Amino acid sequence: MDGVIMHTKHVSTGTDLTLKATAVCLYYKYSLLPMSITLRQPSPLVDGVSITPNGTILEVKWQDSAPSRYHAYWIRHNCHCTDCMETESWMKRIPARNIPRKLTLGKAEIDNGSLVVTSNEDNHTMRYPLGWLKSVSYSTEDLDEKSTQKDIKYKTGPVQTFEYEEISKSGDIYFDWIQAIENDGLAIVKNVPCEDKKVGEVFDVESRDNVTNIGFTELPLEFHQDMPYSESPPGLQLLHCTRLDPSVEGGASVFVDLHHAAEQLQKEYPEHFATLLKVPATFQKIHDEDERPSFIVYQRPHISVNTKGKVNAVFWSIYTEGPLQVPEELVEPYYAAYFKFAELIENSPTKIRFQLKPGDCASFNNRRMGHGRETFKLNGGVRKLQGLYINIDDFKNRVKIEYLKRGNLQNLKRIGDQCGS
Amino acid sequence: MDGVIMHTKHVSTGTDLTLKATAVCLYYKYSLLPMSITLRQPSPLVDGVSITPNGTILEVKWQDSAPSRYHAYWIRHNCHCTDCMETESWMKRIPARNIPRKLTLGKAEIDNGSLVVTSNEDNHTMRYPLGWLKSVSYSTEDLDEKSTQKDIKYKTGPVQTFEYEEISKSGDIYFDWIQAIENDGLAIVKNVPCEDKKVGEVFDVESRDNVTNIGFTELPLEFHQDMPYSESPPGLQLLHCTRLDPSVEGGASVFVDLHHAAEQLQKEYPEHFATLLKVPATFQKIHDEDERPSFIVYQRPHISVNTKGKVNAVFWSIYTEGPLQVPEELVEPYYAAYFKFAELIENSPTKIRFQLKPGDCASFNNRRMGHGRETFKLNGGVRKLQGLYINIDDFKNRVKIEYLKRGNLQNLKRIGDQCGS
Repeated sequence: MDGVIMHTKHVSTGTDLTLKATAVCLYYKYSLLPMSITLRQPSPLVDGVSITPNGTILEVKWQDSAPSRYHAYWIRHNCHCTDCMETESWMKRIPARNIPRKLTLGKAEIDNGSLVVTSNEDNHTMRYPLGWLKSVSYSTEDLDEKSTQKDIKYKTGPVQTFEYEEISKSGDIYFDWIQAIENDGLAIVKNVPCEDKKVGEVFDVESRDNVTNIGFTELPLEFHQDMPYSESPPGLQLLHCTRLDPSVEGGASVFVDLHHAAEQLQKEYPEHFATLLKVPATFQKIHDEDERPSFIVYQRPHISVNTKGKVNAVFWSIYTEGPLQVPEELVEPYYAAYFKFAELIENSPTKIRFQLKPGDCASFNNRRMGHGRETFKLNGGVRKLQGLYINIDDFKNRVKIEYLKRGNLQNLKRIGDQCGS
Repeated sequence: MDGVIMHTKHVSTGTDLTLKATAVCLYYKYSLLPMSITLRQPSPLVDGVSITPNGTILEVKWQDSAPSRYHAYWIRHNCHCTDCMETESWMKRIPARNIPRKLTLGKAEIDNGSLVVTSNEDNHTMRYPLGWLKSVSYSTEDLDEKSTQKDIKYKTGPVQTFEYEEISKSGDIYFDWIQAIENDGLAIVKNVPCEDKKVGEVFDVESRDNVTNIGFTELPLEFHQDMPYSESPPGLQLLHCTRLDPSVEGGASVFVDLHHAAEQLQKEYPEHFATLLKVPATFQKIHDEDERPSFIVYQRPHISVNTKGKVNAVFWSIYTEGPLQVPEELVEPYYAAYFKFAELIENSPTKIRFQLKPGDCASFNNRRMGHGRETFKLNGGVRKLQGLYINIDDFKNRVKIEYLKRGNLQNLKRIGDQCGS
């Protein structure tokens, strides 16, 4: 089934955007799809198909790329017929018990842009669109190509900047914005109108007295991610400066690419890197001041890698770190690695600093970028930011759909997913 | 910062429950906390404190349990003074650069239920409530005790059953219900009133024509979890039978404990277990039929373990499995392990079968239990279930707070968290 997840901190978007914050409306503006995405997979040309003598592997020779080999189990398990799959949604129906434990393929041929292949033991005929078959190929060459697409290409230089009005008017400029966040981790939208409606999903960052969250003070904020104590911390963060009085001094925003720092640690200090992959840090949210009390303690290593050993996640926030609770012999190695990683983050060549002005909205991937701010003095004025989060699954889906709309099969950056490429 | 995560599939609860489904209102009924949770940590008696000659380790001798050792870095990093921590929320303020790289402890003493200790290099005085210090102890004995508390105690026998009216009237019976889900993975609430209000967060399970989701047919459903293609799949699922006409035949609900099956695989087939820890399966949601199109592909192994090698997550759903995309040499080992795990799940001694009647609400942990249903015939009648999800962080917090309200420091079951115990 498929429904709605209840959570005190989550808000439904639905299609009704009338009550949503301006920045969210912008984000969802082009979310309805005018065409079938499944039609967009190009059908590649094939030089021939063959089956190994023992019947366990099918090979497809593509005209323009290295051949792909598919195992008999894989072929049977992914059958596209209506008994085996709900074809509209590619939802499998075939339970494992229906796949013969000894399984060989009979014959294979190309028929009108599809591969048709039969299995011997259960006498099943399978048919696959060639475009689909190529898109999920697991040949070494194709996995390497996917892996390369998933690598982040780090760059220095100014942050890409967009105008609210231009994004509003053009789906292509919208795509440029979304793609800038996907590729660079951060982009700025200028002249975003400040809310004239009351919306429930934003959090206000405004300094005030008697606070229990350091964000609501004039103090500087170290580089951090929001909510690493959640199983799935926020993906996209939209931080919209709605007021900054002339009297206010300081308070520049700072960003750093945590994935870059993690990859630097991996390259330069492999032992420390291995420690931070292995030792679970403690993240927590504990308070009884809010509308509902929290006692959330979540342990996870600061860095994780996918099955190929490539960095796929970083978790970093001094503010929500709780006491380390690991076997004694891991404590000193942990701190040695923690100190080094903190140093690399602080001195990262990816650091960016700018002053958000009223109407500026910093849109960034909270899973990749650490954010912070310099200290400021209000001098009697007001400094106000409104923030909101987009779930990481939703953000990645949004980017993927925008690519697919344009017939682009581009793989997404390796953030979160435990893929093997 | 800390705010709201936007997601098409998430709904905010807030404190306004007037527009929420009955089952959700029941779940949140006792969520406001009448007392400070931090006061509830008992202050243990201490026989003495000492520091090793080199100054790097502090030892506390508890009167009633094994001694705890705390490293100098740990002591400094977790300082509770207002410069180092926002004490109301235990939010750290101390950046790594402020902790001396060479650090030794000076003297330590017990003062009025607190440990007071000084560091030499930066001449800092730290003070910790003994109750807190004991609660986060990482001695082998304390980590082992936490680990034991986190172990699931599997049981056979009937599902615990509760009455809606009794839960509504008594916070203690509410606690019994929540605890039953936490401990057993599944509990039933009977006589839950059917909605007389329109709520947006439920999904209806009702068979109809022209569907793209197999849930909405008369077909049986294999054991599965919902939404394993999400980074954080639903935690608690509340599945409320709102109508079942007398003409309907069949359609019993079935449940199985996937964590039990994973632990069985670990014990009986360690090689297959190792394969399923290592090889990322593909989970996906692909369709363009819904209000917003989805192209979500998430790769993750079927099973994961915490840093101590204990099972902390299982992901299983034939319906949302996509094509495996891993290096060729892993494909046959994957299928051998997949078939065996499927067999253990199908034949698990933890299987439970019952017929939901109108008013019955099956409340279960979607991260631990697989659920399914037997085939049915409507014979012209109606069979209707309403489902909804509670995020896993929220559910675990709810359970933890209920324990803390009762002064119980019980650790939660090992589901999701990558802890080292």
